Amino acid sequence: MKLERVLPYVKTLLRSSVSPGDIVIDGTAGNGHDTLFLAELVGSTGHVYAFDVQQTAIDSTLLRVAKWKESVSVIHAGHESISNYVSKEISAAVFNLGYLPGANHSIITQPHTTIEAIETCLNLLKLNGLIILVVYHGHEGGAEERDVLLNYVSSLPQSFVHVLKYEFLNQQNHPPFVLVIEKMKSQR
Amino acid sequence: MKLERVLPYVKTLLRSSVSPGDIVIDGTAGNGHDTLFLAELVGSTGHVYAFDVQQTAIDSTLLRVAKWKESVSVIHAGHESISNYVSKEISAAVFNLGYLPGANHSIITQPHTTIEAIETCLNLLKLNGLIILVVYHGHEGGAEERDVLLNYVSSLPQSFVHVLKYEFLNQQNHPPFVLVIEKMKSQR
Repeated sequence: MKLERVLPYVKTLLRSSVSPGDIVIDGTAGNGHDTLFLAELVGSTGHVYAFDVQQTAIDSTLLRVAKWKESVSVIHAGHESISNYVSKEISAAVFNLGYLPGANHSIITQPHTTIEAIETCLNLLKLNGLIILVVYHGHEGGAEERDVLLNYVSSLPQSFVHVLKYEFLNQQNHPPFVLVIEKMKSQR
Repeated sequence: MKLERVLPYVKTLLRSSVSPGDIVIDGTAGNGHDTLFLAELVGSTGHVYAFDVQQTAIDSTLLRVAKWKESVSVIHAGHESISNYVSKEISAAVFNLGYLPGANHSIITQPHTTIEAIETCLNLLKLNGLIILVVYHGHEGGAEERDVLLNYVSSLPQSFVHVLKYEFLNQQNHPPFVLVIEKMKSQR
C-alpha cells in the first residue's frame, strides 16, 4: 500500500468523476497539465473550459492541448467569469490556487474571485459531481486565501455538499492540500 | 462519484494494505467489527491481535469472531501492552479512539497510552504498512486526546513516515476524522 500523494489523488478523483462526453472546467489552466488530463477524460464528445488571467498560461495550455482543440476552449479570463462562458451541467471543476509556476509570483489567485468561481461551479455541478481545489499556501497571500477558503467551505450546509480535506501533516515547506466538494442536493 | 466517508475509507485502506497470511493489530477491539473485518482479510494463515480494556468489549469481540478463533487473539489488556504480545512484523494496525459505543462513556482512550501503542506499532510495522487512527473527539476528554495526537503525528520525521489527515469539514457534532501513518523507512 502507498498512500496517494496530493497530485495523484486529484487525478484519481477526476478519473472517477469524469466520463467521455462530459463538460468540465479547469479554473486555473496554468501550464495546461490538468487541462490536458481533462481533455483526455472527456474525449472528442466532451468539452473542457479552461480559464487563466495570464497570457503565458494561455499560450502554454494551447500548445499542450493542440491535439484536442475542438473539445477545449482556452479562455483568457479570470475564473470569476465562468458564468459568462459555461451554462451547461458540468461533472467536475478543478482549481490550483496560488501562483503560476515559473511565472511572476506576485500574480496569485484571490479569495473573493476564487469563491465567486466556486459558487458558479456549484450551480453548474451535477449531483455527485466534484469541485477539487489544490490549495498552495506557502507564498505571500497564500495563508490568507487558505483561511478565507476554509471558513467558506466549512460554512456550506452539509445537506447541500460534503467537503473533504485531504492533507499530509508532517511535511515541511507548506505543501499543498486538497479540498473536495461533492454536491449532494440541487439546492442549498 | 461519491467521496468515501470516514468508515468506508478505513475499510478501503485496510483492504489495500492487508493480505492473506499477514499479521495485524486491532488496538481497540470494541464491538469487534474491525477485528472481524481484519480476520477475513488475513484468513486462516494470518493472525489478528485485538486488544481492549473492557470485559464487555472482549465478550462482544469473541462472539463476533467465533468462526475465526484459531487466527484471532482477543486480549484483555490495554493497547499500551501490545509489545508484550506481538513481536512479528505487522502490515497494519487500526485504532478507534474515544469510548466504546453502548458502554460507559467515561472509559476513554488516553493520549499517552495511545501514543505508546503507536510507537510500538511503528516498530513492528513493515515498510509501506499503515497505522490507521479513527479519531472521535466530541466526548469529554476527546479534544485533548485529538490535540496531543495531532501534535505527536505532526512531529514525526517525514523521511520516516507520511501522515495523512482525511477529514470532512462542514459537518456538525464533531464527526470523527482519520489519521493514516505510512512507514517509509525502517528507522527514524
